[in-house]
Amino acid sequence: MILILEPNTHPESTDYQILVGQLERLPGIQFRVHREVGTEVTLTELYLIGNTGTLTIDEMQALPCVEKVVRVSEAYRVLGRHKQGDDRPASFEYNGVRFGQDTLHVFAGLCAVDSPESVETMMKVLAAHGQVCTRMGAYKPRTSPYAFQGFGAKCLPYVFELAGKHGIRVIAMEITHESHVDEIRDALRQTGSPTGVMLQIGTRNTQNFELLKQVGKQQDFPVLIKRGFGITLDESLNAAEYLASEGNRKVVFCLRGMKTNMGDPHRNFVDFAHVPVVKRLTRMPVCIDPSHSVGTRAAAPDGVLDIFHVVAQGIVAGANMILVDFHPEPAKALVDGPQALLMSELPWFLDDVALVRDAYEKRAALAARPRAAA
Amino acid sequence: MILILEPNTHPESTDYQILVGQLERLPGIQFRVHREVGTEVTLTELYLIGNTGTLTIDEMQALPCVEKVVRVSEAYRVLGRHKQGDDRPASFEYNGVRFGQDTLHVFAGLCAVDSPESVETMMKVLAAHGQVCTRMGAYKPRTSPYAFQGFGAKCLPYVFELAGKHGIRVIAMEITHESHVDEIRDALRQTGSPTGVMLQIGTRNTQNFELLKQVGKQQDFPVLIKRGFGITLDESLNAAEYLASEGNRKVVFCLRGMKTNMGDPHRNFVDFAHVPVVKRLTRMPVCIDPSHSVGTRAAAPDGVLDIFHVVAQGIVAGANMILVDFHPEPAKALVDGPQALLMSELPWFLDDVALVRDAYEKRAALAARPRAAA
Amino acid sequence: MILILEPNTHPESTDYQILVGQLERLPGIQFRVHREVGTEVTLTELYLIGNTGTLTIDEMQALPCVEKVVRVSEAYRVLGRHKQGDDRPASFEYNGVRFGQDTLHVFAGLCAVDSPESVETMMKVLAAHGQVCTRMGAYKPRTSPYAFQGFGAKCLPYVFELAGKHGIRVIAMEITHESHVDEIRDALRQTGSPTGVMLQIGTRNTQNFELLKQVGKQQDFPVLIKRGFGITLDESLNAAEYLASEGNRKVVFCLRGMKTNMGDPHRNFVDFAHVPVVKRLTRMPVCIDPSHSVGTRAAAPDGVLDIFHVVAQGIVAGANMILVDFHPEPAKALVDGPQALLMSELPWFLDDVALVRDAYEKRAALAARPRAAA
Amino acid sequence: MILILEPNTHPESTDYQILVGQLERLPGIQFRVHREVGTEVTLTELYLIGNTGTLTIDEMQALPCVEKVVRVSEAYRVLGRHKQGDDRPASFEYNGVRFGQDTLHVFAGLCAVDSPESVETMMKVLAAHGQVCTRMGAYKPRTSPYAFQGFGAKCLPYVFELAGKHGIRVIAMEITHESHVDEIRDALRQTGSPTGVMLQIGTRNTQNFELLKQVGKQQDFPVLIKRGFGITLDESLNAAEYLASEGNRKVVFCLRGMKTNMGDPHRNFVDFAHVPVVKRLTRMPVCIDPSHSVGTRAAAPDGVLDIFHVVAQGIVAGANMILVDFHPEPAKALVDGPQALLMSELPWFLDDVALVRDAYEKRAALAARPRAAA
Repeated sequence: MILILEPNTHPESTDYQILVGQLERLPGIQFRVHREVGTEVTLTELYLIGNTGTLTIDEMQALPCVEKVVRVSEAYRVLGRHKQGDDRPASFEYNGVRFGQDTLHVFAGLCAVDSPESVETMMKVLAAHGQVCTRMGAYKPRTSPYAFQGFGAKCLPYVFELAGKHGIRVIAMEITHESHVDEIRDALRQTGSPTGVMLQIGTRNTQNFELLKQVGKQQDFPVLIKRGFGITLDESLNAAEYLASEGNRKVVFCLRGMKTNMGDPHRNFVDFAHVPVVKRLTRMPVCIDPSHSVGTRAAAPDGVLDIFHVVAQGIVAGANMILVDFHPEPAKALVDGPQALLMSELPWFLDDVALVRDAYEKRAALAARPRAAA
Repeated sequence: MILILEPNTHPESTDYQILVGQLERLPGIQFRVHREVGTEVTLTELYLIGNTGTLTIDEMQALPCVEKVVRVSEAYRVLGRHKQGDDRPASFEYNGVRFGQDTLHVFAGLCAVDSPESVETMMKVLAAHGQVCTRMGAYKPRTSPYAFQGFGAKCLPYVFELAGKHGIRVIAMEITHESHVDEIRDALRQTGSPTGVMLQIGTRNTQNFELLKQVGKQQDFPVLIKRGFGITLDESLNAAEYLASEGNRKVVFCLRGMKTNMGDPHRNFVDFAHVPVVKRLTRMPVCIDPSHSVGTRAAAPDGVLDIFHVVAQGIVAGANMILVDFHPEPAKALVDGPQALLMSELPWFLDDVALVRDAYEKRAALAARPRAAA
Repeated sequence: MILILEPNTHPESTDYQILVGQLERLPGIQFRVHREVGTEVTLTELYLIGNTGTLTIDEMQALPCVEKVVRVSEAYRVLGRHKQGDDRPASFEYNGVRFGQDTLHVFAGLCAVDSPESVETMMKVLAAHGQVCTRMGAYKPRTSPYAFQGFGAKCLPYVFELAGKHGIRVIAMEITHESHVDEIRDALRQTGSPTGVMLQIGTRNTQNFELLKQVGKQQDFPVLIKRGFGITLDESLNAAEYLASEGNRKVVFCLRGMKTNMGDPHRNFVDFAHVPVVKRLTRMPVCIDPSHSVGTRAAAPDGVLDIFHVVAQGIVAGANMILVDFHPEPAKALVDGPQALLMSELPWFLDDVALVRDAYEKRAALAARPRAAA
Repeated sequence: MILILEPNTHPESTDYQILVGQLERLPGIQFRVHREVGTEVTLTELYLIGNTGTLTIDEMQALPCVEKVVRVSEAYRVLGRHKQGDDRPASFEYNGVRFGQDTLHVFAGLCAVDSPESVETMMKVLAAHGQVCTRMGAYKPRTSPYAFQGFGAKCLPYVFELAGKHGIRVIAMEITHESHVDEIRDALRQTGSPTGVMLQIGTRNTQNFELLKQVGKQQDFPVLIKRGFGITLDESLNAAEYLASEGNRKVVFCLRGMKTNMGDPHRNFVDFAHVPVVKRLTRMPVCIDPSHSVGTRAAAPDGVLDIFHVVAQGIVAGANMILVDFHPEPAKALVDGPQALLMSELPWFLDDVALVRDAYEKRAALAARPRAAA
């Protein structure tokens, strides 16, 4: 990390002394001073070496005399994709399914579990189309305390049994409290572990660090973490690193749109242009959530739903996983029914996904072709 | 709640049938249909009556045929300031201190507890200036998992004892997990309850609903909840309502700036224009946090620090509480030192606050004077 | 337009009288009152009929007693895609090239013209690859008044001559003042009209209504208008309507990312998920500008540049035009060199575009296939 | 300006060579290389000297190998408040009225001129309360092309004559095209120059650089420039510098809120915490526009309108000018009537302003008192 001081900072000024005092107090940090004396201006910089990962730009920027702060150390120690020969894997396996920056899995399913009938209908159709993953919401965080909050632990046994019956291997399931991990583990045990679960951290809990630490400490389940509302991509990736820093490296990062009226008439501002960015900065597989990003079933004049269009945008840029809401009877869904796709649309959806994934693979092959230098 | 349908929606269209099906399924909701037939256009509206507090605008907006949704029921049932004769109190008392929409309390203190010496210095100076409230951070949520996270339960006994010794009656203290409430309760009991604690929910946990529910279930401690990053004011007020809906109505709402580069060079976009808004919409006392909003010690050409200026802006519009970082030796602070005010600045700060509070009271008196109608 | 009043608004209250007075004063507007009396609440609504296109939601919302305002009339009168049998064309022809919601044209070229050599190199390569469109910046708006502002009228003659020589039929060229239209017209005349020009309104001038009116009054040149910084999509589409309301309906709408740090590390927050939205709301062809959206030449681990990825995202969702920066020697470009693609990358770029356009067409065909109802 | 390169950038790499080529091409720029070799990492920096004011951070950041860019030169050359003994004045005089960072003027008036009667009523009341400034909108930029756009040049003669009759010395008046300056100059001449005009650049034209250049070239009228939508404060201050760089240094900077739904239920997100920031960074007097920021007449439980509250917030932090909408009959106003204050509220408004200005002056005096060092 480099601190660039204001022009002409004098080494004997009080502010400079305060700065030096503050730096000397930092545990595990040393620094060296560099001065560049010009005819009109003298530039001073301090090079911080050591445990600088614990310092934030904001904190350092606020120190007296400091004009700018530059971090040169490497971020996201465990999950990051570091320069110069970082050949750590960008994939993991769970319950017989491999998740990597090179795979693609569709997690079509129910935003909220509402009845065994809905669950079974969903899983049966998925199985019929060769799918082994799904999403099933049991714990639902809601803006209003007076809204339906999901059936919770109560529905887990039948969800897991039906999954096993229909060959589903991984269910993405949001949790909002550490106790939910135990409830899920217990329900799996009771039902004979017929399926697997990928724990999902929602956007409202992206910086619920205590939850991240608890989930990071267990390694039974992989974790999907969604990007947070109103924070930068860097801050959300740091949140993912909380999971890994506690030991769980089976982490998928999910883009789900940012909340701002600049995205209107979509429910959120779709952020899938960050798919290649997350793949470049980290080794996490990248998931997209088109249902919550778009939030409507509106279609373009070409007859394609906006939800399908943004899915295609994610995949054509290399997305590895799709979390998408379906419902046998959207009119009866308890949560977010209106944005759900219909069961009858699943074959079209899967065909569309396959078609675009094929285009992505051709694009990657095109990029890999040797070509003349610039 | 009113659903306004798209112009010329036909009552026999499939979409309309789906809409009706969805509405009939909603528990505890009835609806009536109103049609306005014009020469060019037929307008249809559905009036939803009953438990509409559980429905969100977004969900309803996404239903087929729906062009717009209007909520006419009253929000924030418990904490809201409702129309037509809502004379429920806008204040509460805790440990001998009254907090209301008509009071003003300064909570100057340490962003993060770092040593008994700092704590004692702080409290001694506060006592010398007649203050009975302070802020003390024991549990610190940090963006990076590798940063200092506060001394936690370990520092509580000496913090509480020193508070008692110096006559401090209420300490605002952030918690990030429900277990912290027990740790605080235990430490208070062990030390003979020499002081009181106002639990603080930070901006990263504003929508950590499980934490809100747990904290809302206890009534030993009042709660200060900060506005969330990246969500609307309405959503943050709904989060406060989570506390009240579980039983705890001793809630203070804190403005702390919104995270966006539009606020640069301040750390956050200061949002204290919302002080009168929160007082109008709810009966909660309103706190301001100038330290995190501004994030620097920069001063205007008039010699007044930006932090002082935004405090004045909050107070002159009726703010009821100030959470502000001080530190005996900012150069040695472990967290956010550079934005901390100096002990030597406390008298100036308190004089400035008193001066502006006086202006606010004169403004309120001016508003209360009878004047000729428009 | 419907005004929904606050619950229990009394028809004899002063506020209601003011509201009625205000409405009666509106030129060309009539209104009818509808009251819905319930057991607990009386709902009142006013239906405004007539020239409501001149009223804004904000203005009406601010009237006394008004709780919500709903517009049911149709927006973007000329350019909009209206319901119920709006079969006006969604395309136009200019200088032998057809631009529609069903075509795709690449406008690769120089962000800023810097020398006849650069221009000729660019056009020669374009011609060699069968391209008939390009972008050439002569007038450059810059944040700082001290930065290079483009060569202006001076470079037009050689740009046009070289275009003619290499068979370029349409050059997209930003203008920042109405006089630039005359300069362009003059330079074309002088050089014998060897090519055509599509006038470009940049993001800083999206709401420069006087410029829009002047450009809308001429019909010699089609116009590309970029989405504005910091305003909603609706407001930008209204700006496009300014052009059409003055008579020029040959308008292309260009998405170029929104300015917010939520898009970091991209220069802007890429907004190409709005491609299908603009096509649904209006009949304008939709252009994407990947160079300014992304702002860097960074690549994903798959070897594909982010710029290529976002281009693919736009095309796969049906974009009709691409404005993209190339430069023979980015190291010598006077403006935005570092985001420019290299001449040697043009074949790859065009192959990638063709590959994804092909996928889009297959997707559209898939959507058009008859399928069973839900 | 300093370019900090990526760690371990090798001086013989192709990227580095491209970087050096690009830099050598920059006109009027020299650079020196500094390398800091550590055990694990080698840091390289390039110091750019010369005409760096023409370079933008974004452009430099996008160069190959560049990790960060730091500007150490001084921004806003003419209008900026530079370090180390910049004792240029922070005020100017126009038509007998002095505008400075130490004065306060109220510009109460009509958002849009609608009739000679309204104008005269307004001016008569202002005169009766000792005011010599007002605002009068003749040219109104509107989101929709179909909305009322102001009476333009037609109303100028009677506006100026009435101003002269009632002793008004300065009228703030928005212009949206350079020709409006001539129209205003002509109308003043015709009517015998009975008053003065401060030209106003609205938020939609903040980066309409051609208009800024034209307005900056004349020195007959001072200019008020409003902060732009969706751009950073730095970019808006650069826009103001456009005026000064052309010769007109009589510039006032106006805060008017930022457009984002994070400011709801206010019309814009009030940004008056930037009052001291603009005074610190530049020597411009700072104006606040509460009417457009807040956009409603809602009041807090203390009976004070939000508009009054945000005015107080601006003044208590040192604002120098207030642009505020009044109307004799808001119910008949053609633009933004509902946010207008009533004539009967003017005495209260002025009393409130005086009361808070008095508090500000006491605060400044408090800050100027000698106090013990930290």
